[in-house]
Amino acid sequence: MTKQDDGFVKEITSKEEDFSRWYVDVIRKAELADYSSIKGCMVIKPYGYELWENIKNDLDNKIKDTGHKNAYFPLFVPESLLKKEAEHVEGFAPEVAWITHGGDDELEERIAIRPTSEAIIGDTFSQWIESWRDLPLLINQWANVVRWEKVTRLFLRTREFLWQEGHTAHATQQEAEEETMKMLGVYQELCEKVLAMPVIPGRKTENQKFPGALHTYTVEALMSNGWALQAGTSHNLGQHFARVFDIQYLDQNQEQQYVWQTSWGVSTRLVGGVIMTHGDDSGLILPPAIAPLHAVIVPILFDKTRDIVLEKVDQLLNTLSGKIRVEADTRDEYTPGWKFNEWEMKGVPVRIEVGPRDVKNQQVVLVRRDNREKIIVKENNLLDEIQKNLEDIQSGLFQKALDFRTENTYEVDNFKDFEDIMAGGRGFIYANWCGSSECEDEVQNLTKATIRCIPLEGYKPTGECVHCSKEGKYKVYFAKAY
Amino acid sequence: MTKQDDGFVKEITSKEEDFSRWYVDVIRKAELADYSSIKGCMVIKPYGYELWENIKNDLDNKIKDTGHKNAYFPLFVPESLLKKEAEHVEGFAPEVAWITHGGDDELEERIAIRPTSEAIIGDTFSQWIESWRDLPLLINQWANVVRWEKVTRLFLRTREFLWQEGHTAHATQQEAEEETMKMLGVYQELCEKVLAMPVIPGRKTENQKFPGALHTYTVEALMSNGWALQAGTSHNLGQHFARVFDIQYLDQNQEQQYVWQTSWGVSTRLVGGVIMTHGDDSGLILPPAIAPLHAVIVPILFDKTRDIVLEKVDQLLNTLSGKIRVEADTRDEYTPGWKFNEWEMKGVPVRIEVGPRDVKNQQVVLVRRDNREKIIVKENNLLDEIQKNLEDIQSGLFQKALDFRTENTYEVDNFKDFEDIMAGGRGFIYANWCGSSECEDEVQNLTKATIRCIPLEGYKPTGECVHCSKEGKYKVYFAKAY
Repeated sequence: MTKQDDGFVKEITSKEEDFSRWYVDVIRKAELADYSSIKGCMVIKPYGYELWENIKNDLDNKIKDTGHKNAYFPLFVPESLLKKEAEHVEGFAPEVAWITHGGDDELEERIAIRPTSEAIIGDTFSQWIESWRDLPLLINQWANVVRWEKVTRLFLRTREFLWQEGHTAHATQQEAEEETMKMLGVYQELCEKVLAMPVIPGRKTENQKFPGALHTYTVEALMSNGWALQAGTSHNLGQHFARVFDIQYLDQNQEQQYVWQTSWGVSTRLVGGVIMTHGDDSGLILPPAIAPLHAVIVPILFDKTRDIVLEKVDQLLNTLSGKIRVEADTRDEYTPGWKFNEWEMKGVPVRIEVGPRDVKNQQVVLVRRDNREKIIVKENNLLDEIQKNLEDIQSGLFQKALDFRTENTYEVDNFKDFEDIMAGGRGFIYANWCGSSECEDEVQNLTKATIRCIPLEGYKPTGECVHCSKEGKYKVYFAKAY
Repeated sequence: MTKQDDGFVKEITSKEEDFSRWYVDVIRKAELADYSSIKGCMVIKPYGYELWENIKNDLDNKIKDTGHKNAYFPLFVPESLLKKEAEHVEGFAPEVAWITHGGDDELEERIAIRPTSEAIIGDTFSQWIESWRDLPLLINQWANVVRWEKVTRLFLRTREFLWQEGHTAHATQQEAEEETMKMLGVYQELCEKVLAMPVIPGRKTENQKFPGALHTYTVEALMSNGWALQAGTSHNLGQHFARVFDIQYLDQNQEQQYVWQTSWGVSTRLVGGVIMTHGDDSGLILPPAIAPLHAVIVPILFDKTRDIVLEKVDQLLNTLSGKIRVEADTRDEYTPGWKFNEWEMKGVPVRIEVGPRDVKNQQVVLVRRDNREKIIVKENNLLDEIQKNLEDIQSGLFQKALDFRTENTYEVDNFKDFEDIMAGGRGFIYANWCGSSECEDEVQNLTKATIRCIPLEGYKPTGECVHCSKEGKYKVYFAKAY
């Protein structure tokens, strides 16, 4: 049963034709994830999970390097705890999954599955923190959370998802603000250096901030269909939770003070961001920093030369193993062409082809996933050449995504242009805004665009509001967002 | 506010006086975990979580090295799926937490929080597996699970706990049995080489096996109070789940066959095992392989020599960092004695004391946590000496626990002796058993002892059943268990 080269690629929709279907097709064909029997929940398949593990391991190191410790808090939040912070419960209650029974017994109080852990962690911090010596308290948790969404998309919005949530407590407002910005910087570095996904850091408007936060900061990426993706958020919680959960410390003057808190998180949605930033009509294109495989070796086999080619493949595999993430695809039941397509679908950055002529010439053919360039490489130079190309792919993917963002960011000073862009190819619109929530809502109703952020730098207005023509207060990024 | 040396140790109960209170006291004073506002759920504090992460990382490597891939499956199991395997639901239904509402909407079908994932994974495997080429399918998941237990103990039995669960599918019964035993071997190696906790591998009786399994294998450890701890289990599921979830593959003769499955798991309960195997009246004693800190440097400070001692501590810390897990405790507000007690409570294997005379003599004092031995070590020899001692502590802890088990394992041929041992200091009782479940139940009712396992080796009976005096069928290990 030999499968042929054709048939593999044809099965996915093109990006041009239907971006949403392309997205789902790639996820399924590349075996990243699939929907499960539970509505709105996905199964993350081994290849997708390995991608997530690589993102997670990198970020976990960054979180530890900035002085945070991992801990684990309960999955459950009693209804009374969740309700303590008014804005917070208003924001999350409509999408909470409720437990009412343990075994055959009805519970005395309904229990929420955590949609986020501010409440349960606030309650815990009030027990952990006594004096100024306990501050700053810098905690992170890797966990699953549940939000009972009506409309779901693989990786981008599922009823259960995996994430990390940092929770910190500080003695002063200034320290909390510094922590909020520091972790926003960590997210920006993760997105740009590791996922090769450029982001705009900025502050959320009142409409878009986290329920219960003082300020929310965000890193916003532009997907290759012109929609924005909120890639990570970092919240300065002020003293809102400290006051309702009574998180106080004795300061150096022996006086009780409320702490200042932050929280910040990124989730498995980053995997969706990677797919939509880099992928093409042949499937995934993965940044080497997080690719489960850096390279795959595909032998070109003929009956007479089969043994010497396989022997060479074995030898190359031994040389490369442990230095890069590499596998050889020696399956007999598929043609080389079929394998090329499959590994392209899976976004492996580099393919190494080895045929009988290559063995004879002590060379291999290196093929790059990002630009399909074919390079003849001498065997004794292979590792260096692969590593050089991996670095080049990593930086090239970032540059390509940055160029795309530049080309699809429009500085606009009238609402007619705004509407035309949002009705067409979309992208980021950089425009003046009056600062009013009502005006922001109106723009959203008319165009589906929301304010993604007030950028950290250069948000001085340059004229009147792009919609209501009142005096501009900020210059902001608008986009239609996931 | 200088805290004194006394007061720290006095706050914990002695093992002799009340083992259960000692256990909880150590967990709290060593800051491993604590109960939360949710009945029966714990918060794992940073030090406890780091211990778990070290266990997890080691086991994750072993699981990957044996060819398994990590994946992630939903937290939720619809009631109808959970009910498909009759024994399975009967075993788990009494302790399932049920979700009935998503936001304000009542769900059409109740959803269980996974107590284990055979049902949801069986359902998924039926979609993933088509042909013999898809086998063996070797999957592992790190996840939280929920069992609504009435009586809970920190780490040992909590309503939510963290674990890994392996799930595999094979073409033949023999392969499934081999996998079951291989992973039992992995667990034995983890327990003995990493946790320094000797275990007896064996098979569970029908009474004690996993609901829905064909056979359950276990590794059983003996805690220092004479109670047994089931440290990990590995199940040969036969075709029970394959038949109810319709997991079939097309074999090489183009015929549909049901797969043979296994599942296996260990959990955060291992942390409890480590505490109860090695700890003493001064607190934790951690095996170096998993200790969050291998060594802590404590300076002995006097006003005149403060600077030169702190400078030396800095220098030593620089030399050791990155080679072992090490910290310096330079806090001013505690005396050296208080610090010694605190780090002993936390079970750090080695303490390095540095005072002015040590600086002068280019030496330090190394103090072992396991036997309190004090060793004068020359500075230039420090890393070697620490590493030698860490190895010695690791193997010494295992040997000590093995000796304890040997001393507390009783080969018994009459029920009078059996009852006396179970009424006294307890331990393992190695005795003949007739093979009847009723007889096993009677022994449990009379003595609280259960059959921990039919050991893999040497379970030939040597006479009549220790309780009913019928013909012995197996020679087994009894104990009172957690």
